[in-house]
Amino acid sequence: MKLYEALARDISESILSGALQPGDRLPSVRKTSASRGVSPATVFEAYYTLEAQGLVQARERSGYFVSVSAERLPPEPDTASRPAEDAQPLAMSERVFDLLETTMRRDVVPFGSAFPSPLLFPLARLARLMSTSVQQLDPWASVDDLTPGNARLRRQLSLRYLIEGMTVHADEIVVTNGALEALNLCLMAIARPGDAVLIESPAFYGSLQAIERQGLEAIAVPTHPRDGMDLAAAERALERHRPKACWLMTNFQNPLGSLMPDEKKRDLVRLLARYQVPLIEDDVFGELYFGDKRPLPAKAFDTEGLVMHCSSFSKCLAPGYRVGWVAGGRYTRQLARQKLASTLTTCAPAQGALALYLEKGGYDRHLRLLRHTLAAQQAVFMEAVRRHFPEGTRVTRPKGGYLLWLELPGAVDALAVHAAALAEGISVAPGPIFSPQPGFENCLRLNYGHQWDAHAEAALATVGRIVHAQLQR
Amino acid sequence: MKLYEALARDISESILSGALQPGDRLPSVRKTSASRGVSPATVFEAYYTLEAQGLVQARERSGYFVSVSAERLPPEPDTASRPAEDAQPLAMSERVFDLLETTMRRDVVPFGSAFPSPLLFPLARLARLMSTSVQQLDPWASVDDLTPGNARLRRQLSLRYLIEGMTVHADEIVVTNGALEALNLCLMAIARPGDAVLIESPAFYGSLQAIERQGLEAIAVPTHPRDGMDLAAAERALERHRPKACWLMTNFQNPLGSLMPDEKKRDLVRLLARYQVPLIEDDVFGELYFGDKRPLPAKAFDTEGLVMHCSSFSKCLAPGYRVGWVAGGRYTRQLARQKLASTLTTCAPAQGALALYLEKGGYDRHLRLLRHTLAAQQAVFMEAVRRHFPEGTRVTRPKGGYLLWLELPGAVDALAVHAAALAEGISVAPGPIFSPQPGFENCLRLNYGHQWDAHAEAALATVGRIVHAQLQR
Repeated sequence: MKLYEALARDISESILSGALQPGDRLPSVRKTSASRGVSPATVFEAYYTLEAQGLVQARERSGYFVSVSAERLPPEPDTASRPAEDAQPLAMSERVFDLLETTMRRDVVPFGSAFPSPLLFPLARLARLMSTSVQQLDPWASVDDLTPGNARLRRQLSLRYLIEGMTVHADEIVVTNGALEALNLCLMAIARPGDAVLIESPAFYGSLQAIERQGLEAIAVPTHPRDGMDLAAAERALERHRPKACWLMTNFQNPLGSLMPDEKKRDLVRLLARYQVPLIEDDVFGELYFGDKRPLPAKAFDTEGLVMHCSSFSKCLAPGYRVGWVAGGRYTRQLARQKLASTLTTCAPAQGALALYLEKGGYDRHLRLLRHTLAAQQAVFMEAVRRHFPEGTRVTRPKGGYLLWLELPGAVDALAVHAAALAEGISVAPGPIFSPQPGFENCLRLNYGHQWDAHAEAALATVGRIVHAQLQR
Repeated sequence: MKLYEALARDISESILSGALQPGDRLPSVRKTSASRGVSPATVFEAYYTLEAQGLVQARERSGYFVSVSAERLPPEPDTASRPAEDAQPLAMSERVFDLLETTMRRDVVPFGSAFPSPLLFPLARLARLMSTSVQQLDPWASVDDLTPGNARLRRQLSLRYLIEGMTVHADEIVVTNGALEALNLCLMAIARPGDAVLIESPAFYGSLQAIERQGLEAIAVPTHPRDGMDLAAAERALERHRPKACWLMTNFQNPLGSLMPDEKKRDLVRLLARYQVPLIEDDVFGELYFGDKRPLPAKAFDTEGLVMHCSSFSKCLAPGYRVGWVAGGRYTRQLARQKLASTLTTCAPAQGALALYLEKGGYDRHLRLLRHTLAAQQAVFMEAVRRHFPEGTRVTRPKGGYLLWLELPGAVDALAVHAAALAEGISVAPGPIFSPQPGFENCLRLNYGHQWDAHAEAALATVGRIVHAQLQR
């Protein structure tokens, strides 16, 4: 990390922790230069960085002033969802596609996107390593790297688990085309048409689509925006429906951003073990925590091999490379066979490039910077939501990731907001695509993982105006 | 093509056409050098090449002699299969996996493999282009190259269709993780559990596994080793079972190597159109023809958008890259949605590298050389089968690809041959994995797409001895 980056980070941490308050003036460049023992140019660069991030504002001839607050935040949503307790077949996939396809263009402001900005990733370094790796690629890699996948990559993944305090042998890992394939393979490996699956409410729309495609039924379980699935409700559903699997996100759930505490993860794993129901754990955001350490996955508490832990590099390192994996527990062999039968294997050059990247180091440094950037962007974005959205809007405060969940006041219709925003070249993700049941008509998921600038600010103001207009109808 | 390669090719064509007979002596180096106007070194190099390919043998102090024959071949199988006419659910996928997993190691002689030798591909050039392409990769490629896929790649594919005389717009193409994913997506897009699908008998085991995974039923149709599916039988099955799809390989079918004549392809497409049944056409071997021109796919005769044409680069250019596609006719939109929901998209750097390769040219030159090599290897391999296998063994003579289908005489049990060969470090693909019904217990599929040398010859001799021993039980 460069000097100015370290300085900017220190200051932004003071802002995000509330030590610096909105309106506070940053020390002058001369003072900071003297106190930190760095050149004035370094201080300037740090202040510019903070300004570009939206954390401070320059006022002519007076210096830089803090512009966001860690305290003056919009209220949080604080009740769990209350879905109906039935198991039901789904029929919403086409509606989800209709909405998603409108957001898959780079000229649309991507508040509705599920991916952060590609500019946040070390693409040049990855390209150099891909280049090295592909030129050294053994012709027999197409045989050696066949499913379960490149041995060096699986070893590196196993090492990363070890550093987090988990024992996941390389042989338990199956490399996939992103986490989405991993999740689909899990469902295929353990459920047959007509079976039921426990899910969160609201849930990642990809899980709803997977359940629908495979002719399964979904049982939505009440889920709290702060700490995730309600375990008492989950137990009632297990007792009543005897589902074949539970599929959820323990860390920074999509769309709520909820983070299940360790104790609750342990209880979840025990509960499922009592019913011998496997857990499909989607942990694609786990690396994007803003706290001191990576939150453990539920997998860490699994002693029976019932947890299939799915993740990928698509959201924290290499979007477009399509490399993910599943640590499959007792289902590893079935997962590998499902993979062989569905896409055979994962791109050998991409696997090789990521293995080399992990071997060469730099991933943790990149992740530190990325987490810091996302935390700062969350503060700025949330501040802007507070300014532009009507009183009564509730906003989650996820401790990681890059997604906010908004509960809009009154009878605001998120689908109408989506349509109106899209007409202005802005995408948002409306609540109804995250649930087969009603209950989220007034909700929006917004992505703050893209560059914050005047254009983004204007776009968010536009969405805010659309919501205001809806309220006044 | 280098001078010596051109000379070697001319001579091998004379051998394969029968103009040169086994035992014929090649003209002396001096004579050929004079008559062709090339250096003696070039002639030597050409003769060495032919010797390495196994087409000629050097005898000390006497020169080079032709060692294979285009005429003295083992007899061909010449009757169509006669499967039962029922529609039936399948339960063979695990057995196929058990067998396949034994062959997925590079230290096993790969007669049972479905892939040709990776050494036949321009991997160094691909690596250079991948390197260029990934270093120039736009950060937004992960958005732009999303399904349906890289626009430049789809344009190049569209151009190749045009050159073959077909109009397939780039918008009709969905890029996939190899042809296997394309085929699976086709089935998902049009069939629901319990539906029936027409297939060949024997058929590519991947189609049987896909049908089983999706809970569909298969209707096996009699298929001839020379010209493919029996259309009269197909019509009876259409009438009786009203299947939701027909899935077959028109060009160099796996495992038979059969090639459906153009007229028959046209009739097939018309027949299916009469019943409004879509065709899932697997054409992964179409580029590997030994004749004058690429055989057309059935897609060329489709006027109603009922044919989904699937192919890939995995078997003719870039194994391990996992780039394939489907030209989906009226199903294109559904196919793209199935792709989005199952693996989201295909590796952006791999798509970019192949787009650049197709743009830069060289693919056709590579394919010419590859076809020529495979044709020569077929002749040599077939000659060796004739020498090492018992009288009465019947062997197909595919006009393309790299797979031979053997009908062994008497009560030889291909599964036992597989087990015994594997114990000697040699894989073969036994008939039963290609059919849910009995009828192929005495059949083997052998891959001649790997280097022919003393080691390979010894391995084939071992398989021949195992078959002989079985006969004498």
